[in-house]
Parts: sequence; structure tokens; C-alpha cells
Amino acid sequence: MNKKLGRQTVELGSAAIIVSSASVVGPKEGDGPLAKDFDMIVSDERMGKRSWDLAESALQKTAVDIALKKAELDEKDIDCVLAGDLQNQCAAAHYGLRDKNIPFCGLYGACSTMTESLSLGALLVSGGGLDRVVCATSSHFCSAEKQFRNPLEYGGQRAPAAQWTVTGSGAAVLSGTGRGPAVTHVTLGQIVDKGITDLNNMGAAMAPAALDTITAHFRDTGYGPEDYDLILTGDLGVVGSDILCELSMKNGYDISKVHNDCGKMIFDIERQDVHAGASGCGCCASVLCGHIMKELMNGRYKRIMVIATGALMNTITVQQGESIPAVAHAVAITAR
Amino acid sequence: MNKKLGRQTVELGSAAIIVSSASVVGPKEGDGPLAKDFDMIVSDERMGKRSWDLAESALQKTAVDIALKKAELDEKDIDCVLAGDLQNQCAAAHYGLRDKNIPFCGLYGACSTMTESLSLGALLVSGGGLDRVVCATSSHFCSAEKQFRNPLEYGGQRAPAAQWTVTGSGAAVLSGTGRGPAVTHVTLGQIVDKGITDLNNMGAAMAPAALDTITAHFRDTGYGPEDYDLILTGDLGVVGSDILCELSMKNGYDISKVHNDCGKMIFDIERQDVHAGASGCGCCASVLCGHIMKELMNGRYKRIMVIATGALMNTITVQQGESIPAVAHAVAITAR
Repeated sequence: MNKKLGRQTVELGSAAIIVSSASVVGPKEGDGPLAKDFDMIVSDERMGKRSWDLAESALQKTAVDIALKKAELDEKDIDCVLAGDLQNQCAAAHYGLRDKNIPFCGLYGACSTMTESLSLGALLVSGGGLDRVVCATSSHFCSAEKQFRNPLEYGGQRAPAAQWTVTGSGAAVLSGTGRGPAVTHVTLGQIVDKGITDLNNMGAAMAPAALDTITAHFRDTGYGPEDYDLILTGDLGVVGSDILCELSMKNGYDISKVHNDCGKMIFDIERQDVHAGASGCGCCASVLCGHIMKELMNGRYKRIMVIATGALMNTITVQQGESIPAVAHAVAITAR
Repeated sequence: MNKKLGRQTVELGSAAIIVSSASVVGPKEGDGPLAKDFDMIVSDERMGKRSWDLAESALQKTAVDIALKKAELDEKDIDCVLAGDLQNQCAAAHYGLRDKNIPFCGLYGACSTMTESLSLGALLVSGGGLDRVVCATSSHFCSAEKQFRNPLEYGGQRAPAAQWTVTGSGAAVLSGTGRGPAVTHVTLGQIVDKGITDLNNMGAAMAPAALDTITAHFRDTGYGPEDYDLILTGDLGVVGSDILCELSMKNGYDISKVHNDCGKMIFDIERQDVHAGASGCGCCASVLCGHIMKELMNGRYKRIMVIATGALMNTITVQQGESIPAVAHAVAITAR
């Protein structure tokens, strides 16, 4: 039976096992340091489609298809897909997965979607009733730029704290039975808004949400940084990661020795000229479902915590002068 | 223990009880036939805010506050809010609930959000680990019109099959213990896309999704229309409701005697000049959390099924010529 620990954490009564995962990325991501761990690197960012939006849908569909194939499962073996993305009304997931004969629940957690999905998926699988759930998300540099910032053709200069949206998707199959790393704890995050209004500094907006959830996890479980081989945030980038480590220290936890951030890992930041690093739902999704899962399987990591962070504004709220609320959800994963 | 029935349905092992609910609506809704059952009718659609977007946030916050107050619960008693809305990146929920000290998971199911939220919430509560969950959603005529159709000032003529987006919000508190009607079954819907491309005919786009989920529910459970006092769809309106009843008949189920639709109930369609009826996440939410909950408590209904339906396009996909995918999730609720 699942057990509530403290205010925000659930210890799973029966493990929710990640029986397979898949990652599909674009050419720039495929030119980065994690290239060998992706299941597919596409050379055409358009995926042969007539829009960036539909290309992103194709990325997400492909990631789900590969994850199912690796687990030797059919659509009918899956009780629910929990998926979302950054496009208005989560269109990438809806159009990418509309032909799947799998019950579908849409999530919106911005760049926190991968761990929101894994959190809810793990709770649903361990709670009984759903045997297997697919968790998926995606982002696409081109669909995100035109929607959140400027038309690509505008060619605007990027701010130093800006992050580069990952073109990629990740999908994971959670099951009550089978082999693979398992989600053991879920810490659901609260919305945190510290008044940041700079759309070009998402790391600063999201770091306090990551801090809040990590602190809640330690408080609820009694664990500390020393209990994890890796504390992996989603896409704080260089600026946000520094803020998180500094704030954690002030809270009495030194996470710097075990902390890393998907937004710092997926690109060679200097060579690939991505300023403060990477971002996007697809960042945490493709790094976790590619590189990190392999490191859990090959024994490099025994026990990790993953905290994807999301900035919850839209373009209208920011134009209206509102600050940027953020949220972060954490899952603890153990190799087994 | 939760039990899977057939392909898409879960029979809850322990009831998820709706211990309280609240509905807050705008002046037009307050002038309709269900006026006496809303917890609050606001006279100012702007809620004293400087934008329609923030007014919608205020509606959702108010609904959650009233639901908690009616249940005599504090924020700290709630383990998670599952909420979403129609605004880009679900901003109404994020800005409305950002000051709540409650873990937050964002959902996007368009107008299916109320039953997506109740479905996931019921599974989480009955699965253990989360004791109490708040399910909430909202819509606002003015924020929806400017985002999905035209600026209000444009004053365009409305098509005969068009529906009027409800200004309103509903919130429900689900608990493992307590008094109130209980969710007994959840049927998660698949995405259905029958090729409809007319943004002014959402009922036609969504009816096949409602049909698919209702049919799955009957197939999985062995129940039929005769087992329910009411089969309530979210916001198919007049056009979509007719399509659903006709298609159901072809599938061998006559639901017409027990079917009603929130989109047909909330307004006096002729007098209030709303063409094919009402729509929006707030339609099903405010009708269910207001009128229907009262009818379950006063004994008029013993056992109902609620199926909110969502159209999953965005303005870009439709401008690009794509058809409209739709989804519907069903919950069976028993008075007790």
C-alpha cells in the first residue's frame, strides 16, 4: 500500500518499474555529448512534415513507438498515456498520439512534464487498477521559438541567460511487473513564484521551485544529498543550477557534489553556443529516457532523484506584467 | 484494491468520496435556469481584475476556496490539486492557485478537464498515498473568445452550431473518508478524430469521443443506460447531443431517455441567445459541482455517469488545416 510521508511525499507500496524508455532528438542534440545514448537522432528537424508543430508530434509518436517496441508491448497492453508538451493546448501530444488506441490523459507542467508524468504514472500503477502506463513529453526548438519568443526568421540576438529549447522527446513505460529501475518515492511540488519576470531567465524563475520540492523531499523522507548518487534537475541550465546549489546550501543541504542538470548535459555549451544551456520538456525527457536510464542499467548510478522544473507563464501573462510561477516534481529512482 | 475491468475501466477498490464541491459563475450563467444551485454568482465578469485572464484565475481560486470551506478543510489537508483550463499553457489555473500551499499537478483536457481531473483524482485517492485531492477547472467567455476566435470588439456574427463559453469554475474535494456521493468507476477515454475541421461545430467533433468512452464503459462493466439515472455529457450542446444519441442508438444503446448535457442545461438557450448551447471547461465543472451534486444529495439521482468531452486542437493546428481530435473521460458516481 502506498504510504504518505510528511506533507508532499508518497512512498510507493509496490514499485513502479520503468521497463523501457526511448529518446528521439534532433540533429543539434545528436551533435552533443550524449549522442550515443539516444535511440534515434533525426537528421531532418521537420521530420518530413509540413510544419514544426507536426514535426514535434512525430517526435513524440516515434518515442512512444520505440519505447513500446523495446518493451515488446502493444498499444493494447498500455492502460493510459500521460503526456503533454509546450505547444498551446498541448497540441504536440494530441496530434502525435491521436491514432494510438490507448486511453490518453493530457498533462500540462511545462518543462516539469516528464516528472509530473512519472509521478502520476507511478502513483497510478502502484495504486492498482492500471497495470502499465506510458509517460511522454516533447519539445521542439522551432515550434517553441515561434510560439514563445520570435519568428525564427527574425534572427534576434539571444540574451546571455537564455536557454536553447531541445528538439526531442522521451517516453518511458511504467509497469507493476518486469525488470528495470523502479520509482520508489514521489514528491509532488507546490507552485512557487518569487517574482521573476524575465522570459530570458527561466533558470532563475524555476530554481526556487526545484529547491522547494527537494527540500520537501528531504524533510518528508529523512533522506539527504548523501543518499543519492545523482540529484538531477530538468532544465535549470547554468544560471538556475548555480542558484539552486547556493540556495540549497543556505537551507543546510550541500547538493553540489551530486547535482547535475539536463540543461547543462545535452549540449556542449560553449562549442554549440547555447548560452545558459538547454531547456524544454524534451530536455529532461530525452536525457532521462536516454543517457540516465543507461547509467542506471549499467550500474553507474544506484539511486537517483529526478526533479524536472516548469515555468508556468504564457506569453500573454508576461506581456501583462505578471511574474513567472514555477513548479517542480521529484521522483526517486532505484536501479534493480 | 482497484480492479481493472476490460480495456479502459477501473472499478475503485475503496470509494473516492466527493466530500464537497463549489461552483462560481458569471452574470449570464447566473441569469440561467440553474442559478439557485451555484455557490456564487459574480456580477462583475472582470472580478475587479485588470484582465479577463486574471478574472478567470480569480474564479478558479474562489471555487477552490469555497469547496475547502464547505468541507471545513485547510490547504494543508489537501495532498494535491489537479487543475487546468483552456488558456494557453493553462495560465488560469497556475495564476489562480499559485498562492496555495498545496502540491499542484496541471492537466490539459480542454473541456474534458473536469472528468479527467475526477478520474485521476479518484484513482489516486483510492490507490492510497494521497488522502484528499481537489479537482478544479474553469473557463471564461472573454478569455476564450479572444484566444480561440476573435477579439470581443470585433463583434463577429456567431454560427448556428457555435456554443457560448461558460464564465465559471467548479471545484470538488475528493477524499478517502467522509460523507457524500462517491466515484465508483473510472473509464479513461482514447483520442478520437473523425475529421471534423469546423471550429464552430465543436459538438460534432466531440460527440464521437463521448460515444467511444460511453461504449467502452458499457462494454467493460456490463452496465447499460438502464443502470444510470442520468448520463451527463460535458458540453456537446444541442448539435453534439443529437449526434451522440443517434450514434449510441446505432451502437445498440438507447441513452436518450437518461441523457442530458451540461451545455444544454446552464442557459435558457432561446431566451439567452446562445445558439447551440454552452461550452468550456467551466460548463461541466459548474453544472456538476453546483446543480448535479445537489440533486445527488437530495435523492433525485442515485447513480449517474458524467462524461466531459474535450476538443484537443489549438488555433494553429486548425489554421494549418488539421482536423480536431477529441477525448472524453467518464466517472460513475453513486449517491450515498
